[in-house]
Amino acid sequence: MGEFELIARHFKRAPGPGSGARRAALGVGDDCALFAPDAGMQLAVTSDMLVEGRHFLATVPPARLGHKALAVNLSDLAACGAEPLAFTLALALPRADEAFLAPFAAGLFALADAHGIELVGGDTTAGPLNICITAFGQVPAGQALLRSGARAGDDLWVSGRLGDARLALEVFRGAVSLTGDAFEQVRAAMETPQPRVALGRALRGVATSAIDVSDGFAGDLGHVLAASGVGAVVDADALPRSDVLARQAPALQHLCTLAGGDDYELLFTAPQARREAVLAAAQAAGVPVTRCGRIEAEAGLRVQDAAGRALESNWRGFDHFA
Amino acid sequence: MGEFELIARHFKRAPGPGSGARRAALGVGDDCALFAPDAGMQLAVTSDMLVEGRHFLATVPPARLGHKALAVNLSDLAACGAEPLAFTLALALPRADEAFLAPFAAGLFALADAHGIELVGGDTTAGPLNICITAFGQVPAGQALLRSGARAGDDLWVSGRLGDARLALEVFRGAVSLTGDAFEQVRAAMETPQPRVALGRALRGVATSAIDVSDGFAGDLGHVLAASGVGAVVDADALPRSDVLARQAPALQHLCTLAGGDDYELLFTAPQARREAVLAAAQAAGVPVTRCGRIEAEAGLRVQDAAGRALESNWRGFDHFA
Repeated sequence: MGEFELIARHFKRAPGPGSGARRAALGVGDDCALFAPDAGMQLAVTSDMLVEGRHFLATVPPARLGHKALAVNLSDLAACGAEPLAFTLALALPRADEAFLAPFAAGLFALADAHGIELVGGDTTAGPLNICITAFGQVPAGQALLRSGARAGDDLWVSGRLGDARLALEVFRGAVSLTGDAFEQVRAAMETPQPRVALGRALRGVATSAIDVSDGFAGDLGHVLAASGVGAVVDADALPRSDVLARQAPALQHLCTLAGGDDYELLFTAPQARREAVLAAAQAAGVPVTRCGRIEAEAGLRVQDAAGRALESNWRGFDHFA
Repeated sequence: MGEFELIARHFKRAPGPGSGARRAALGVGDDCALFAPDAGMQLAVTSDMLVEGRHFLATVPPARLGHKALAVNLSDLAACGAEPLAFTLALALPRADEAFLAPFAAGLFALADAHGIELVGGDTTAGPLNICITAFGQVPAGQALLRSGARAGDDLWVSGRLGDARLALEVFRGAVSLTGDAFEQVRAAMETPQPRVALGRALRGVATSAIDVSDGFAGDLGHVLAASGVGAVVDADALPRSDVLARQAPALQHLCTLAGGDDYELLFTAPQARREAVLAAAQAAGVPVTRCGRIEAEAGLRVQDAAGRALESNWRGFDHFA
């Protein structure tokens, strides 16, 4: 199959009720896609590239890879409080492989449909497997959640649960043994993360800062602290984790929750006076949130256990070149 | 050097007079970039991925690769008549290599500055070399140049010169021998294409359809004919070419001009009654244009020489999986 037929078969879809707002005036098939945010809205744009062995394992089913490639971008939109609109896909493939492309596209579009957004353009080429998605959202001008708004005294919150994706990676690496439902649960956390789009939108006007946890809780929190010019104390034992992870050795629990990476949960700050508003936003979004620390004026990240004992705090974020 | 320092050193730039309109409310360094098109404008979005051996040779100097990676995206904006605004860059690199990144960034930003646009976000990761740029432009709502507007009786036009990039590729392949200035000229055509942004904008309201020549003149014209539901007659001898190419064998000239690829010239149609307007637009943009055929109601592409003799017309566009 040629390039153009390949694109047409898997990535061109007729406008239809199942696929959202049909916002694009012009989708795949011209030199550019054309669309516009609504009046008074800023466009939020994010771009993520996924490479085998770095962002996914060769063992990932293609449908889950399609899901994850879009999910990690929607997670960035969520962290800004943006409403997703559309995305482009650039794909390098070793060969035009029907057995890969059909489930990949199905997984991709299932998540796109769940968020009412559409593929508006892109590129397909031969090359080592590489997936680059650029996603577009919109947010009322001036209301985006930024990394720079955390203030001393704010609570530190995180959505969902941390660490299962890293635990799954350790299983694939052979460092941890898990089987059956426990393995499937952590594997699903790694392969099909759920971007917290509804929560991000609900936190507009409530959270003072936000970031999505992609490189590890401590590392991503470090970006917020640096951008905001503040420090933080984190209660490591308060970080939310699954029952499966809670049965592992304490050191592994700390590694997975604090420096796991690939969580795609929202880490955010909010004034103590807004605790009820945070909980209401979480309930409206259907996502649990957990208070796990506080912002302080003193720079630096201080990690302690429930008894207030300091833990090793050099939990570095995942560095793609380390 | 770690990922974050790498990004900061080469791709974060302070706002300044040398770097355009500073349109982005928020650039590299938060979860998303935030910006908005002007009132009444549609956003034009395009995404291109460059892979070694497919879109560039290992012999390309990094500065030229930085230029080309952005140029091919600006060429898509040009083909829509859009004014460039901003771009994102996702980059997979085998390693964090200063000797590559410094000139790559210099070449990239030199072209960005020439068009007054800025890098607003992106991603850097380890992996086989892959460059994915998504570029944003704006165009007055409803005025974008599309592939679908060609009408029977329209003239067929092309900007600049065709075929030098393909001739350079044949030299690198060892099929053609060129040296000195002749080689440097065709090599520059391949490695530093000039996106026809000013011409695209000047053709708004004049051209009835447009596309940029990236996969080869005949193949890209085929997309216009299919989208517009028309056919065309092309005068192969009228296709503009350099003196260097004009000294090659006739069959090679036809191959390079009709099916060369990597030209990044604009192929467009306009009513015969607008010939003066086309020439005025070309003069305003400082780019030569050449009339090279006409659109006909009968479907199909008919290529002939100056004497009206039919040439083999199966000039297929470059297929990345062929």
